[in-house]
Amino acid sequence: MPFDQKSREDFFKRARKKVTIAISSRDNILIQCVGAVDELNKSSNLIFERLTEWYGMYFPEFKTADNAKYVQGVLIIDRKKPDLAELEKVFGPQAPTIMGRMKVSVGTGLSDEDLARIRLLAKEIQSLWSLRDEIEKYEAAVATELCPNLSYIAGSELAAKLVAQAGGLQRMATFPSSTIQVLGAEKALFKHLKSGSKPPKHGLIFQHAMIGKSPKKARGKIARSLAAKLTIASKADALSHNFIAEKLKAQFEVQAKRILADQEKRQ
Amino acid sequence: MPFDQKSREDFFKRARKKVTIAISSRDNILIQCVGAVDELNKSSNLIFERLTEWYGMYFPEFKTADNAKYVQGVLIIDRKKPDLAELEKVFGPQAPTIMGRMKVSVGTGLSDEDLARIRLLAKEIQSLWSLRDEIEKYEAAVATELCPNLSYIAGSELAAKLVAQAGGLQRMATFPSSTIQVLGAEKALFKHLKSGSKPPKHGLIFQHAMIGKSPKKARGKIARSLAAKLTIASKADALSHNFIAEKLKAQFEVQAKRILADQEKRQ
Repeated sequence: MPFDQKSREDFFKRARKKVTIAISSRDNILIQCVGAVDELNKSSNLIFERLTEWYGMYFPEFKTADNAKYVQGVLIIDRKKPDLAELEKVFGPQAPTIMGRMKVSVGTGLSDEDLARIRLLAKEIQSLWSLRDEIEKYEAAVATELCPNLSYIAGSELAAKLVAQAGGLQRMATFPSSTIQVLGAEKALFKHLKSGSKPPKHGLIFQHAMIGKSPKKARGKIARSLAAKLTIASKADALSHNFIAEKLKAQFEVQAKRILADQEKRQ
Repeated sequence: MPFDQKSREDFFKRARKKVTIAISSRDNILIQCVGAVDELNKSSNLIFERLTEWYGMYFPEFKTADNAKYVQGVLIIDRKKPDLAELEKVFGPQAPTIMGRMKVSVGTGLSDEDLARIRLLAKEIQSLWSLRDEIEKYEAAVATELCPNLSYIAGSELAAKLVAQAGGLQRMATFPSSTIQVLGAEKALFKHLKSGSKPPKHGLIFQHAMIGKSPKKARGKIARSLAAKLTIASKADALSHNFIAEKLKAQFEVQAKRILADQEKRQ
């Protein structure tokens, strides 16, 4: 028997509601933030490379360790009117070196028209950076609210990335510790499964200071310990909503210290 | 005998001058412009995709054929306060459809905080677009000045791309017509040379209206004719600096018409 008009409409209503619930979860916003930050970084890197190449026509000797300073330099340096005071505001003690290089530069004298376009590029890069910072700040706030336990142990930035990589908090709460340990290292994991190369010791959680800064030999064990605590934390965030992270973090720190001490003894 | 201090300095001076000349040529600016436009396009596409995905949480039924309109929509649409007059300013006769979709949307109600970040993304995209337009305009002006013959026949945008692809105007002037015909189709050309697939009929010059809009069977011949004229034009721009493009363009148009007429007869 075909559905009558009334039931048909009821079914539509219920389906609509389900779709709304599926896309309304807060972790979806976290996933969007992580993706947006990633894409803003890619874009600004791409345009920054172009800036260095283009500006290199004008002042190829200009180099800075810090990209933000380079962009500022592009905006203020005028080879026709060298201004030490202006340079010192941005570059401090490096300013005289830059002045010296300016005077012997082999760069070509670009017209004001040309320079104006290069500076527009530089301003665009600054704008991309500040938007990235803004979204990162927002991402941290959402992470702290959505997964306080994960954020407390891993830091809000890493917590956001883990949730995004897992495809949502509810999904992450179903993962075993071994999966969370290598989350983000899927490529190395599948290489291991296919060709028998060494399995990855850590994925995204490598970004945690306790892992990245530890000696190589201890990293695998510390990663396992951290992943175990994050697994419990993700279940607390997704299901029980209790805040148990202080205890978990303390336990992890004790374990990590012991692993590092054992490691030193063996050497 | 080692050089004395004086000759050493003289040599340095001469070397410096040569470097300056090498990077000062105007076609280098053209190359930078073409690259920058390309990268601004890539970046804005990347961020636009993120925008549609993120905004899709809020109003998944919102679709426009035109990306610029989509971005404008993101900036003005407020599902809590539907405003037909505001919508009509941007979308004209489409506005009522959008209003209708807004009312039955399955999208989730994002907070103002969330929407503010999405709108920042939208504004960034607009800013990338307007910078791209600005650099494209500048690129056209430089091309018209640097290679008036090429620009007259191919249009300044295509001329700029050809010069950039060739690695400079002087280099382009040494190319035979067959190279200019497939400039930008290097991948297809080398595939042809390696595996004997069909050779490419056209590279960048496909963008010329006379080729892209002609029937497929005539394109190869028209491309050959256009490439021949562009080859002469590039030599005039790089070496003799005479303006001979009017004659060349007229000749090309006669040839193209004949090729099209022949093609029609054969069918």
